[in-house]
Amino acid sequence: MEYRRMGRSGLQLSVLSFGSWVSFHQQIHDNTADELMGVAYDNGINFFDNAEGYARGESERMMGRVLKGKNWERSCYVLSSKVFFGSRENNRPNQHGLSRKHIVEACHEALGRLQTDYLDIYFCHRPDPSVPIEEVVWTMHHLIAQGKVLYWGTSMWSAAEIMEAHRVAQQYNLIGPVVEQPQYNMFERYKMEMDYLPVFRNVGLGTTIWSPLAAGFLTGKYLNGLPEGSRLSMDEYGWLRDRWLQEEKIGKLRKLKTLADNMGVALPSLAIAWTISNPNTTTAILGATRKEQLIQNLEALSVLPKLTDDWKQQIENILTNKPEMNLA
Amino acid sequence: MEYRRMGRSGLQLSVLSFGSWVSFHQQIHDNTADELMGVAYDNGINFFDNAEGYARGESERMMGRVLKGKNWERSCYVLSSKVFFGSRENNRPNQHGLSRKHIVEACHEALGRLQTDYLDIYFCHRPDPSVPIEEVVWTMHHLIAQGKVLYWGTSMWSAAEIMEAHRVAQQYNLIGPVVEQPQYNMFERYKMEMDYLPVFRNVGLGTTIWSPLAAGFLTGKYLNGLPEGSRLSMDEYGWLRDRWLQEEKIGKLRKLKTLADNMGVALPSLAIAWTISNPNTTTAILGATRKEQLIQNLEALSVLPKLTDDWKQQIENILTNKPEMNLA
Amino acid sequence: MEYRRMGRSGLQLSVLSFGSWVSFHQQIHDNTADELMGVAYDNGINFFDNAEGYARGESERMMGRVLKGKNWERSCYVLSSKVFFGSRENNRPNQHGLSRKHIVEACHEALGRLQTDYLDIYFCHRPDPSVPIEEVVWTMHHLIAQGKVLYWGTSMWSAAEIMEAHRVAQQYNLIGPVVEQPQYNMFERYKMEMDYLPVFRNVGLGTTIWSPLAAGFLTGKYLNGLPEGSRLSMDEYGWLRDRWLQEEKIGKLRKLKTLADNMGVALPSLAIAWTISNPNTTTAILGATRKEQLIQNLEALSVLPKLTDDWKQQIENILTNKPEMNLA
Amino acid sequence: MEYRRMGRSGLQLSVLSFGSWVSFHQQIHDNTADELMGVAYDNGINFFDNAEGYARGESERMMGRVLKGKNWERSCYVLSSKVFFGSRENNRPNQHGLSRKHIVEACHEALGRLQTDYLDIYFCHRPDPSVPIEEVVWTMHHLIAQGKVLYWGTSMWSAAEIMEAHRVAQQYNLIGPVVEQPQYNMFERYKMEMDYLPVFRNVGLGTTIWSPLAAGFLTGKYLNGLPEGSRLSMDEYGWLRDRWLQEEKIGKLRKLKTLADNMGVALPSLAIAWTISNPNTTTAILGATRKEQLIQNLEALSVLPKLTDDWKQQIENILTNKPEMNLA
Repeated sequence: MEYRRMGRSGLQLSVLSFGSWVSFHQQIHDNTADELMGVAYDNGINFFDNAEGYARGESERMMGRVLKGKNWERSCYVLSSKVFFGSRENNRPNQHGLSRKHIVEACHEALGRLQTDYLDIYFCHRPDPSVPIEEVVWTMHHLIAQGKVLYWGTSMWSAAEIMEAHRVAQQYNLIGPVVEQPQYNMFERYKMEMDYLPVFRNVGLGTTIWSPLAAGFLTGKYLNGLPEGSRLSMDEYGWLRDRWLQEEKIGKLRKLKTLADNMGVALPSLAIAWTISNPNTTTAILGATRKEQLIQNLEALSVLPKLTDDWKQQIENILTNKPEMNLA
Repeated sequence: MEYRRMGRSGLQLSVLSFGSWVSFHQQIHDNTADELMGVAYDNGINFFDNAEGYARGESERMMGRVLKGKNWERSCYVLSSKVFFGSRENNRPNQHGLSRKHIVEACHEALGRLQTDYLDIYFCHRPDPSVPIEEVVWTMHHLIAQGKVLYWGTSMWSAAEIMEAHRVAQQYNLIGPVVEQPQYNMFERYKMEMDYLPVFRNVGLGTTIWSPLAAGFLTGKYLNGLPEGSRLSMDEYGWLRDRWLQEEKIGKLRKLKTLADNMGVALPSLAIAWTISNPNTTTAILGATRKEQLIQNLEALSVLPKLTDDWKQQIENILTNKPEMNLA
Repeated sequence: MEYRRMGRSGLQLSVLSFGSWVSFHQQIHDNTADELMGVAYDNGINFFDNAEGYARGESERMMGRVLKGKNWERSCYVLSSKVFFGSRENNRPNQHGLSRKHIVEACHEALGRLQTDYLDIYFCHRPDPSVPIEEVVWTMHHLIAQGKVLYWGTSMWSAAEIMEAHRVAQQYNLIGPVVEQPQYNMFERYKMEMDYLPVFRNVGLGTTIWSPLAAGFLTGKYLNGLPEGSRLSMDEYGWLRDRWLQEEKIGKLRKLKTLADNMGVALPSLAIAWTISNPNTTTAILGATRKEQLIQNLEALSVLPKLTDDWKQQIENILTNKPEMNLA
Repeated sequence: MEYRRMGRSGLQLSVLSFGSWVSFHQQIHDNTADELMGVAYDNGINFFDNAEGYARGESERMMGRVLKGKNWERSCYVLSSKVFFGSRENNRPNQHGLSRKHIVEACHEALGRLQTDYLDIYFCHRPDPSVPIEEVVWTMHHLIAQGKVLYWGTSMWSAAEIMEAHRVAQQYNLIGPVVEQPQYNMFERYKMEMDYLPVFRNVGLGTTIWSPLAAGFLTGKYLNGLPEGSRLSMDEYGWLRDRWLQEEKIGKLRKLKTLADNMGVALPSLAIAWTISNPNTTTAILGATRKEQLIQNLEALSVLPKLTDDWKQQIENILTNKPEMNLA
């Protein structure tokens, strides 16, 4: 396993990591979770990602139970949570969003569910324009000062929103965000390859990538229609279906499959390897529901060194979606 | 129930809230308090206001006992206290005012009486010119840093005093006050409609209004003399009596009663609705002693949408006390 | 002549000073202006007040011509101007208000009209809510840095607006305002005796009082109707007439006249002496149109020591308008 | 003419303004420039935009000559320049970009060419990653402190780059950028309608729009092929041609023409009115080469009030290019 520093912070994350997002509680149960996390850990993964909003806190509870059952030293792994969506079926005012009241209360609740004394990383899961950024930065700073959080970051924020947090951190001499959790894959490139460039350059930013496989699309499993039980066949993910199952993307996907065959590697491994081949990627989060799937995805590590400039250019020729700036 | 952000903070308060001021302990007992807070909560009220100075701490003790008996999640409601007047019959030096010693000790005592781990809002109940403002701001800041308080504010401070707290917060990079608890009603308008305007505009300020009914005067119950047992008939409120029972105000009150009749609403509901129709009002604190009274006051919510610009102008024509600035 | 430090600044102003407001250009001409300024200077007055808005720049031009004719050393007197109202009959956008563009251009124009290299004091003549206070404070700071202005202040700002300027000056390490030019006299007391108290106490504030005679009302000349040619008989001052010629004020005025007679002093001298007896007053600006009038007003200096606590209490008993704070 | 505050600054710009970009020197001569600027000024335009890079300084020289011939007060108009591209055919090192040396020297040269003492607005014409942003912000700040520039801004910077300038301004207590000059029109919407949103909200940003007519495309003149002598027929603008002359855009353009006919307005006026109907637009820069053309474009002012929500929705239905954020 390769480990990378998370942006300009001192924290090191395995370049592949494990997330429980929609799978924990909804698709798998404690035994499978225990097995998957064991495989991940044994393969060198040290970052386990979670959020209050995943299955209304049940994802954190399940991960907490699994971790309690392992004899891993707390210093061996990095644990995250995220605040924004709340953990109740019907959140009342102040039970979601980024007010100081909710961030503090959500942190305490997450610590309880995960059965730990501190979160290594605490993410603001979305921007919240109804709360002054000063309040957010102060609150995260105080949680770090109190030892309940070690690093804080953002998820799905724009570069300008991240820089605004840094401006305010600068103003009050506070600790700013050091990591962002964006979506990034062959078909979703704007933020990582354009928007965040000044952030990488000016203040530094680690990235914990979600959806390196574009919600499963890049596994190739949709090349011949929707498999029964796949995530895209579930009703609540209709919006994902609409986005990806377009002819143009299917066409590119076929070419990528051929290229992967020519390279002698599996398409999903190639897609993940492509994501972590971006030097601004700290880690790509894997979200398997079966052991075999996880092991296959870990193959990306061995694909990475094969991904030469030449192959990357061929991929670029297929994708033709590289974000470009027009300053003419 | 409508919820409003408290100034520029991220905290949301119900536009009507519940205060225990003179009623708890002095006029009502645990059973009634329990009933009243239940009615308030069930109607969507999420802010419960208190102070060390209310009935020398007994008001907080009673609210603490009631809350302990409820199964409400702590994140569902917002709890306040205030520091300044002390909680003893004969306060010795350092047992009142805004010294660091008293603020810290009063906070711990209030947490004990309210049986909670933190106050959502902590108010400086009055300005204290004998304490440097630096000491006050630093102390409040540290209580927030320690997690014992989430937001701090002032009560009965002038706009210039609030701005001085912001200047000092700016100088030392501290968290400044975000809310003020002023008196505001149809007959007491200067602070809300004139003095605080630059504060609202420049740094933001939530307001938790006390006395929206002008100590009961706007209920209309004094239109025919002082009822036995009413607050204004009690000896210690002689100063209130002097202020309100003037012929001019009685004359305006009669016209307001007629206008309320024409609108088809109760006068107290109209008076409360008028208070929260000011967009700079975050919440108006109700202080009922009987369930029926509280339910009637909650009617203000349904009066609010009826309070059109036209009706407001007619009220203005009766009051003729709108504060105006002369910059000629 | 007594000299007082202007607030916490090091600048010393004579406790009586000379302003050209409406008189220069509109009511008097160069010869009279020359005579009046000579009398003022010979009696120890060292502060001459002006503004771009007085007679559209003509008041400054006249004062500039008079000063050029005197052989006074520049260091012997203090010269002010004010920016806000513009100096043209029809100001275009950016030719009035407090934008950086107008402040800078107005300063250069005032220096030209007054024929001087720097203004000792430059006032913002009114608050301008359409311009961020940061822009105003930065611009005044830069004019001081460039040597074109020595001190800056405000006129007709509220205490909270002044404190906001201090907060911003604190934030950016800039020079804040040190003086305010408010109206202050026996019938207009709120700002000096209530609103500014926290400003005097916390950051210091000099005050250059205008209208110590309440636009002439306190001379007593209106006790028997409006004299031909007096300022209140001119049409454009109808708003002043309305304000002052009320029966209640006339009643108090009669009693003040009797009291002045009993003290053996002239009523206008008493009124001016009363204004400068407030220790928070730096100077009261006199605005005479005739030499005799100016000499009479200067009598206030000899009345001042006669104004004992006992006489002041008797005046208070007549006025019964002392602003009070209700913190009960 | 309508005037708008430039972001949160106090400066007011006419909502339509006049730019010399490619036209001055290259397409028109002094007499025409004089006539055009006269028409603009007489119609209330108060902002004249320029840059060192426009015709290698000749555009500024021409504007300087025209302004010298007019008897307009300097405070009546707002003059800009931009630094980055240099003004020489072959710029040597330090004769372009954003180093302190080039910014300072370029400013002095622009003042000379424009024959003025100060620029009202000075833009960084492009971002320059080879210069530390600290050096840029310090240099602009010092030009303001010296009185050579009143406001500074950017052109073609990303939101994150602008926020980085604000972070550095915050760090060193400097004056940050207050205005950006982006391209914005019906076919180029991302920056104004998505990227800058957090900047508008958090620190404020005025915008001086260039290319409201999409390099002439939105005049409709290319609906029937390239007219001889039009800008798109010139060889050096091949890149513009490629971008606009696509079938899809032509299709939308035809529908917009029909809609304009239905509204009873000219297409170019409609396109300009649409641009200034965005409340985040401060001004749209017009770049006419003939008097009739300028007068026609000024018609946008009378089209603006006709652009109701209903018409705007119909335009949206034709364009179907509104930038949207996916936070799902």
